[in-house]
Amino acid sequence: MSYQVLAKLPTIRDASTALLIYDRILTRQPALKKWIQKFPCHYAVQSGETLKDIDNFPQHLKKILKLQQKHQVSFSKVYVLGGGSVGDFGGFVASILRRGLPCTQIPSTWLAALDSAHGGKTALNVAGFKNQVGTFHYPEKVWVIKEVLETQPADRLQEAAGEFLKTALIGGKNLLEKLSHWDWVQGKIKWSDLKSFIEVKYSVLKKDPFEKKGLRHVLNLGHTIGHAWEAEYGLPHGLAIFYGLLFDMAWSSQKNLLSAQGAQRITSREPWESIFNLKIDRMLFSLSEKKLSQYLLQDKKNSKKGIQYIFIQKPGKVTIQTTPIQDVLAEYRRQKRILEDFHENL
Amino acid sequence: MSYQVLAKLPTIRDASTALLIYDRILTRQPALKKWIQKFPCHYAVQSGETLKDIDNFPQHLKKILKLQQKHQVSFSKVYVLGGGSVGDFGGFVASILRRGLPCTQIPSTWLAALDSAHGGKTALNVAGFKNQVGTFHYPEKVWVIKEVLETQPADRLQEAAGEFLKTALIGGKNLLEKLSHWDWVQGKIKWSDLKSFIEVKYSVLKKDPFEKKGLRHVLNLGHTIGHAWEAEYGLPHGLAIFYGLLFDMAWSSQKNLLSAQGAQRITSREPWESIFNLKIDRMLFSLSEKKLSQYLLQDKKNSKKGIQYIFIQKPGKVTIQTTPIQDVLAEYRRQKRILEDFHENL
Repeated sequence: MSYQVLAKLPTIRDASTALLIYDRILTRQPALKKWIQKFPCHYAVQSGETLKDIDNFPQHLKKILKLQQKHQVSFSKVYVLGGGSVGDFGGFVASILRRGLPCTQIPSTWLAALDSAHGGKTALNVAGFKNQVGTFHYPEKVWVIKEVLETQPADRLQEAAGEFLKTALIGGKNLLEKLSHWDWVQGKIKWSDLKSFIEVKYSVLKKDPFEKKGLRHVLNLGHTIGHAWEAEYGLPHGLAIFYGLLFDMAWSSQKNLLSAQGAQRITSREPWESIFNLKIDRMLFSLSEKKLSQYLLQDKKNSKKGIQYIFIQKPGKVTIQTTPIQDVLAEYRRQKRILEDFHENL
Repeated sequence: MSYQVLAKLPTIRDASTALLIYDRILTRQPALKKWIQKFPCHYAVQSGETLKDIDNFPQHLKKILKLQQKHQVSFSKVYVLGGGSVGDFGGFVASILRRGLPCTQIPSTWLAALDSAHGGKTALNVAGFKNQVGTFHYPEKVWVIKEVLETQPADRLQEAAGEFLKTALIGGKNLLEKLSHWDWVQGKIKWSDLKSFIEVKYSVLKKDPFEKKGLRHVLNLGHTIGHAWEAEYGLPHGLAIFYGLLFDMAWSSQKNLLSAQGAQRITSREPWESIFNLKIDRMLFSLSEKKLSQYLLQDKKNSKKGIQYIFIQKPGKVTIQTTPIQDVLAEYRRQKRILEDFHENL
């Protein structure tokens, strides 16, 4: 478990016996294409949930193992270059080749660079359900590389806002402050800030690397409702989480865990007021309570006693409370009504 | 990592949230059928290599996850009841459900009870090549159960002879002595002896559970040539290993590692002389050197420097020597010639 922030893709000494799995879209960048082609065994994939479908997995594996035969090597390592879906897929492949090969993750999206590339989780989808199978397989290294991440279109940073905000809420007001200085319109972060966000993830992972103790659940702040909206409406993950966080902050205030002034202090900072609409998009509440309750039942934090729901007390302080699904539905109803009233009074 | 030898299948307290994967042939035994049906989620499979084919894996997973939906449970554990292929498949499923569920292996064959159920290796086949992907996923418990193992036909014990002999050669002359008192014709072991054989496996596993140090390779005594014959001729594994051991003993003598008297003392014991033909079946040497060298190249113990070949010095003492493939082929030629001469002089 370790990561490095680098300016450029490093030279790979063991490329001749390595497997590189990468998002084919990245070959549009000449520098990346050149780097990729230094691997005799490189395997291009199309990012997205179809890549993770178990139905396609046998074909992928056959092609990957054919590369090994063709080049008469025995893979000793796997490099994975791509965003979340490529990381989940490539990490899973690494975890089952020779019963677990060392893996280096090279995230190409903000979400992966901040979050998914580090957490050791790999996953495939089964019959349309996400992440039904997978492994814990921590990458030996994660390389967070400026040259790779800057190939992204500017709007990708706004789409990732939810995970950055979540990280800041867990990490503390110092991080909220940093976010306010980034160029969210041009999609440019301040590179020297990035480590302090990634550190928040590691501080949690180190306490509960295999999700055995429930401590890792704090990383799911904003995700309970956010995931339901993401699944229902196909929103970008970071955006769904952004709305999920607004929901969770409002609920935390309602429960008097987070003071009204505290909530105000969070959302009154830039960039939230000027870049993002700080109201939850009213359309999202067209998700029926029945459908929402189905999503909640599927939530991994759900058990007989309720959902391990994460509330926020102040930036840097979150708390987990076992919460019956009925309570989540009641709060959903309450927030929906407030938003409807607000729009009626416009 | 622990095992128990039991007379009967125990009552399962957590059956309601468990998944049972089992060899369908076992339902022919009323007692086993009754036990199996106590699991709301039980999944029958047909044993054999087809079960392990990655092409069939998506369908299996979908059916297994449907069981979970149908019974509205979230699996908390996997029980696997069957022989080697069922154990490899079921162990793999357990290792990727919820990123690794605890697993209890209940072997139904001698080979699995002695060997494969304990070692933490799970595997699937890809494009006709065995065990190309898999995980290390040690069972929480292994139950070696008389009631289950005695459902096997008598000849299965003879087919397992190779792995028992291998274990005795690694474990020492005390174990060779025990084997000589079993009823190989009726296929009955002495139950009180079984633990001392399983202990040999654990003593190696404990030193090198994830095959990182090369120490675990000693368990491959007899397997280098044995696997080639098994793959080429479709011999039962234990029988192929038996011939592989004869080959390795002859080579160890030829190298003066094992004394001629030492070899004599091993094979002159019952049951080897009276039950088994102590000459390698001449037909096996019709495998061409070219084909053999392909099998050797695929051997997991192979590297640029040669194969990690396991030789025997005396019962209880084996040694690993890095051996060029050319040397293996030369010894193969030598033993083939001796056998041909022997038959010409008959």
